[in-house]
Amino acid sequence: MSTQANSKAHPTLISVDPFKSAFGQKGLHNRWHPDIPAFATVKPGEVFKIECVDWTGAQIGNNDDSDDIKNVDLSQIHHLSGPIAVEGAEPGDCLVPFDKMPWGYTGIFELENGGGLFAKEFNSRACKAIWDFEGIYATSRHIPGVRFAGVTHPGLIGTAPSAELLATWNQREGQLIAECGECVPAVAFPPWEKGVHIGTKDSLAQDVYQKIAKEGARTVPGREHGGNCDIKNLSRGSRCYFPVFIKGANLSMGDLHFSQGDGELSFCGAIEMAGVLTLKTSIIKGGVEKFALKQPIFLPSPVDPLYSAKLIFEGIGVDIHGDGKQYNMDATVAYKQAALNTIAYLMKIGYTREQAYLLLSAAPVESHVGAVVDSPNACVTLALPLGIFEHDILPKEEGLQKKDFGQCAIRSDGVL
Amino acid sequence: MSTQANSKAHPTLISVDPFKSAFGQKGLHNRWHPDIPAFATVKPGEVFKIECVDWTGAQIGNNDDSDDIKNVDLSQIHHLSGPIAVEGAEPGDCLVPFDKMPWGYTGIFELENGGGLFAKEFNSRACKAIWDFEGIYATSRHIPGVRFAGVTHPGLIGTAPSAELLATWNQREGQLIAECGECVPAVAFPPWEKGVHIGTKDSLAQDVYQKIAKEGARTVPGREHGGNCDIKNLSRGSRCYFPVFIKGANLSMGDLHFSQGDGELSFCGAIEMAGVLTLKTSIIKGGVEKFALKQPIFLPSPVDPLYSAKLIFEGIGVDIHGDGKQYNMDATVAYKQAALNTIAYLMKIGYTREQAYLLLSAAPVESHVGAVVDSPNACVTLALPLGIFEHDILPKEEGLQKKDFGQCAIRSDGVL
Amino acid sequence: MSTQANSKAHPTLISVDPFKSAFGQKGLHNRWHPDIPAFATVKPGEVFKIECVDWTGAQIGNNDDSDDIKNVDLSQIHHLSGPIAVEGAEPGDCLVPFDKMPWGYTGIFELENGGGLFAKEFNSRACKAIWDFEGIYATSRHIPGVRFAGVTHPGLIGTAPSAELLATWNQREGQLIAECGECVPAVAFPPWEKGVHIGTKDSLAQDVYQKIAKEGARTVPGREHGGNCDIKNLSRGSRCYFPVFIKGANLSMGDLHFSQGDGELSFCGAIEMAGVLTLKTSIIKGGVEKFALKQPIFLPSPVDPLYSAKLIFEGIGVDIHGDGKQYNMDATVAYKQAALNTIAYLMKIGYTREQAYLLLSAAPVESHVGAVVDSPNACVTLALPLGIFEHDILPKEEGLQKKDFGQCAIRSDGVL
Amino acid sequence: MSTQANSKAHPTLISVDPFKSAFGQKGLHNRWHPDIPAFATVKPGEVFKIECVDWTGAQIGNNDDSDDIKNVDLSQIHHLSGPIAVEGAEPGDCLVPFDKMPWGYTGIFELENGGGLFAKEFNSRACKAIWDFEGIYATSRHIPGVRFAGVTHPGLIGTAPSAELLATWNQREGQLIAECGECVPAVAFPPWEKGVHIGTKDSLAQDVYQKIAKEGARTVPGREHGGNCDIKNLSRGSRCYFPVFIKGANLSMGDLHFSQGDGELSFCGAIEMAGVLTLKTSIIKGGVEKFALKQPIFLPSPVDPLYSAKLIFEGIGVDIHGDGKQYNMDATVAYKQAALNTIAYLMKIGYTREQAYLLLSAAPVESHVGAVVDSPNACVTLALPLGIFEHDILPKEEGLQKKDFGQCAIRSDGVL
Repeated sequence: MSTQANSKAHPTLISVDPFKSAFGQKGLHNRWHPDIPAFATVKPGEVFKIECVDWTGAQIGNNDDSDDIKNVDLSQIHHLSGPIAVEGAEPGDCLVPFDKMPWGYTGIFELENGGGLFAKEFNSRACKAIWDFEGIYATSRHIPGVRFAGVTHPGLIGTAPSAELLATWNQREGQLIAECGECVPAVAFPPWEKGVHIGTKDSLAQDVYQKIAKEGARTVPGREHGGNCDIKNLSRGSRCYFPVFIKGANLSMGDLHFSQGDGELSFCGAIEMAGVLTLKTSIIKGGVEKFALKQPIFLPSPVDPLYSAKLIFEGIGVDIHGDGKQYNMDATVAYKQAALNTIAYLMKIGYTREQAYLLLSAAPVESHVGAVVDSPNACVTLALPLGIFEHDILPKEEGLQKKDFGQCAIRSDGVL
Repeated sequence: MSTQANSKAHPTLISVDPFKSAFGQKGLHNRWHPDIPAFATVKPGEVFKIECVDWTGAQIGNNDDSDDIKNVDLSQIHHLSGPIAVEGAEPGDCLVPFDKMPWGYTGIFELENGGGLFAKEFNSRACKAIWDFEGIYATSRHIPGVRFAGVTHPGLIGTAPSAELLATWNQREGQLIAECGECVPAVAFPPWEKGVHIGTKDSLAQDVYQKIAKEGARTVPGREHGGNCDIKNLSRGSRCYFPVFIKGANLSMGDLHFSQGDGELSFCGAIEMAGVLTLKTSIIKGGVEKFALKQPIFLPSPVDPLYSAKLIFEGIGVDIHGDGKQYNMDATVAYKQAALNTIAYLMKIGYTREQAYLLLSAAPVESHVGAVVDSPNACVTLALPLGIFEHDILPKEEGLQKKDFGQCAIRSDGVL
Repeated sequence: MSTQANSKAHPTLISVDPFKSAFGQKGLHNRWHPDIPAFATVKPGEVFKIECVDWTGAQIGNNDDSDDIKNVDLSQIHHLSGPIAVEGAEPGDCLVPFDKMPWGYTGIFELENGGGLFAKEFNSRACKAIWDFEGIYATSRHIPGVRFAGVTHPGLIGTAPSAELLATWNQREGQLIAECGECVPAVAFPPWEKGVHIGTKDSLAQDVYQKIAKEGARTVPGREHGGNCDIKNLSRGSRCYFPVFIKGANLSMGDLHFSQGDGELSFCGAIEMAGVLTLKTSIIKGGVEKFALKQPIFLPSPVDPLYSAKLIFEGIGVDIHGDGKQYNMDATVAYKQAALNTIAYLMKIGYTREQAYLLLSAAPVESHVGAVVDSPNACVTLALPLGIFEHDILPKEEGLQKKDFGQCAIRSDGVL
Repeated sequence: MSTQANSKAHPTLISVDPFKSAFGQKGLHNRWHPDIPAFATVKPGEVFKIECVDWTGAQIGNNDDSDDIKNVDLSQIHHLSGPIAVEGAEPGDCLVPFDKMPWGYTGIFELENGGGLFAKEFNSRACKAIWDFEGIYATSRHIPGVRFAGVTHPGLIGTAPSAELLATWNQREGQLIAECGECVPAVAFPPWEKGVHIGTKDSLAQDVYQKIAKEGARTVPGREHGGNCDIKNLSRGSRCYFPVFIKGANLSMGDLHFSQGDGELSFCGAIEMAGVLTLKTSIIKGGVEKFALKQPIFLPSPVDPLYSAKLIFEGIGVDIHGDGKQYNMDATVAYKQAALNTIAYLMKIGYTREQAYLLLSAAPVESHVGAVVDSPNACVTLALPLGIFEHDILPKEEGLQKKDFGQCAIRSDGVL
């Protein structure tokens, strides 16, 4: 007689309702702090599932204007699922962990509210593209003419910081903010009691909650624990090695992307969605020392879209699209030039600047650091996969055929 | 009776002797200037071959000490083959162009003489690794334990600048030098009459030569015309679209690499060699306007090594390996952290810091810009292809096995 | 105010309970016949989901002995979901269509009951391996030491045959059976009233049902309409062009595989599972003539596992593992030799013959037709992806390390 | 002063003049026989070069009619370079070995003189396509509209057979010939004293030469030692493990291909050329036993063209294009149907049947064995890489655009 060894499916440790506000839901939080208690505990080797809301906890992909993007409350992001404690994990260890709502969206934030890589250059006004998912593909009514296979991944996953590491983060980022003064867009995001959400708040002592709210690191940047690194290749099937900073490791994750381009340039640049992650963890005792681990390392998924034919744009560390200023070995400037060169090319084909900007953010474009030694110019490339376009976009003797692709979703006042 | 339609092989327009000094050889030059006369002229569609010396014009891969690296005369680099004029090319047009000495080398330059990405961090002393070519593979007596397929490419290829563009280059780079003062290593390289080599000097009026020597742009950085972009994917079989700035286009090329990692971090980082290029050109009239071309764009080679299994290292824009300083969305700093994380890992396996530094420069490692929007931290990844190692380097429960890989070639005074 | 344009998820047209017998469930059938009425009708362009039971309709992956494999009733297979009619499809048109239970299994059938490629050579006794799915990966307690990413696909998908085409099938296959006599295993499977299942039987006139039961083509082989072609690359994201033989096209599908090797050699060779397919269709009028379509053609998924490092085994059309007989340009014999060479190699590593046989059937191995012109020997290769093994299996100077991998699930009488 | 450690390039052990008859040249032979003496001996680990003539030893790629194909003397093929003995190699060991004239050709042989896969179906008359090499690409004046990167490889490489193995070959192939009677085209090629070429004949005793001429195995098929397997993936950078049958191993090679499709269907189907191979060998004592080696195994090159987008054609084991006969699990018939389906499609685009036949033979098409278990139909696929075509060949709603691609080179009497 058979045993029903397989009849238990993998347990879902955190369940969310992506159609409701994140704030009423347990198992979610939106700050990094060692004192946020684990919501669930797993044994190494156990397979489990975690559900995540869309990073804003809103349903931005579900309507066709972009006022929701315009008015997004940045104090609330990113809504993470967790923390998940792993039995036996201790500081200095290494933690080794690793599916989907049928739509998502990509947005450009307002210059004054979130920004993006070209917030200043484009004097950004809120707009968005909604993407429909058909099996493994995404298409958009707002960016017609393209269709691509998704490389789903959590934009944000990380272990909890120790108190010391948290203090280091707040100190160094605070100093940058202080040096910058009233920068628009903001250079960094300090702790902020507004918008804090700790799903397990009810079980916390009041002073602990206050401490977390006051000190908790915002989730915007990636840091030593991983965090919001937005690495598109950390997709389904990856194996990641995270440094452990506190007992139990306390892994949290969220900001699921259906697809993203290298650079995620429009900030809300990936195709943002809610979804479910399936993971399994193990612990390597003393892994931080064994592997010289200052930041996570990972083995990427063996599964990847095979868009081998590409058109590649170069960029160097000179503001060629702006004031012509020469920078000193600056890969960020070089990346921006490569992206601006690509946007200019896509506009020749008929896309609006906003469509091109959103497309580069969402599609599986690849950006390589070519060289960062040929003083003074860093060289960065951006590769546009030809297979995502429904028509031939290659350079032709007779020039490029310009089509009418309409426009992406814009704010209700019609201003772009 | 057969006709000998194919009996003419493709003509070699520039022949060099890689075993002799570049200075006595015609068809070579080492500055960018519109007045450098074309050495040969081709018709669009004609297939031709161009031989190139090693970028230094020296034979550095041919002996086991590294004094040649230590004393390299930077005023002389890069020795380019050309210019090749294309009949009918005029400013605003777009030029569309694109085999091997059985050894090469990778070097670390002295802090005071050329530098490299980690010149300061490592207080660099000259050292090098010599690579032996066996068919498509490179191996090195100085970095045992690895073997990889080469992705041969010219590190440097570009059209001649117009007088206006040349002036812009000299102005903006001069300003950077002026702002920096006495930086070590140098931030940029101004025109320098020392070391100038124009192979066709004998046919030039004295004042024209003097002008070129005085104004001619150094070949170190990549610029709007392409130049020293060191893009490893611009390899055999690529099709590149160059902007044309002067009548005839005057294409020059050199700095052949057998292999290079994304970033080419040790400056003399690729596997440098002499070799032969086979090219064919065509002209797209008005291509600059048609394709919004501020810099070259290209279709990469369909042929690429398939090292699909990788170990990926993250880096963020904080000097984690140094003083912990927080930078503002700095992809160069993030690239450096990813590289330093990788070097630290390779040292756990037994490579010296210099070996690791050289290996990352020469092997087909890939560096992606992960995200440049999550303020304040840019995130850059560096992927180590597992297939190039003769043994398993993956993270293991029991830690990494440390081997003795010796040391790379060092300077005759033995100082590292 | 937002409109809820996206709030309707894609409709599931056929729902099944994979834990119950297929026979009581509507929307399923297990014969090919033009008179099987469409279960549902879709419009071109509509996105819909189809649920499928495991091809046997049993729960073979759910217990650890293999008596279920031994006693499988071949008159009942394959349970297909459908038919789905497409509005407007007419004969001569071309139909263009294209997720998951957490376990599956791979089986070897008894020589007398289904067989398999090596049924005679191995005198096959029923045995099986159960595979557990963890995210995108499959592992098996019965074949330890391997782990691979799945390439999910329907082994069986096709349009309904016309009465003429059905008659042709039955005639030509009947003739083969007649010529063979009492072959074991059977060379082909004639219509059989036993085991027939037409989910919509209740709505059929008695004589129509009798006709279908009597004439309906068994689902075992692939034919002109597609059918059981077991092509692993027809995976998620493919676009397939099917010839249309009857009005409405009547598309049916089933036999979902989590993964399969080229050749699916053990017959029940893929990782068999139940699951859900998401599809969308369109019609190209007159497509059969336009594309010279005698059989389906397809664009494969852009997503595929990147197991680039492989060990490749050759096979030629001589029965080297058997009686040494020379065949005349026989690619099937060559395929078998390549597979037997691979199995012999895997046995040197420690796998049993049955484990190796099942592994080649289930893992993403690739088999290429090398050459079919070098008389008298066809040459076929079989490539074993190295990345699916947890340890290094490459040929070594010192030979191969033999491990103990246990044994796969065997029949309750213990005979293998 | 530098030491010239690298100044010795790898030695060329066999030099040939591809513009002269192979018969006057030493280091060449065209039969397999253990008594053919080694032409050169190498030490394990030594890197060396071997030059090869085109397999016919003629210059077929050098004129535009196809009488040379029509009249090719099959008693003379293939001209191999070798044998190369390896010091220390003994029977039972395993031998581990592994660049270019600027044109090549692909030919269809006459039905009565060599044939090809479709010799009967097409009642083949001699014709050919000449290919021009531009860097890594091949183009043909006879098959316009395509351009692809070459995957250069020796179609033929193998160790010398022992006397016993040779006798086995001659016996089994002789029996096949005997059973077939007067087949056209021939099913196999028995030893033939006509056309024998042993480059070292002058140094052989007369009776030894006579023995070789009388018994020596023809080079047409691949066999247990490797030989003419025509595996396109055995390209530059491969590592192959050959069984050793006689002391010294006596490795020979030739039949260089610039490119070839899986199947090489027109017999003279690859792009045939002369060229140079660079190799290095080592010996694994007792490797045959260690690796269960009945035939060579190999690690393919890490370098391969990335033509990821493909259009795939199915074929089953029924002669759908002919008399509709049902075969019993016949992968050769299935391969042929897939190829005929592809040819029919290419003819819709405007290629002649001969152009399509030659193109499938020469271009990097891939053929996979889909399934060989679904009785009675084997299923084989053939994948056409879209990236080799200069225009879009995908199925379109409006049908395929038919162009005029002229015709390939035909025989001087104009009969096709």
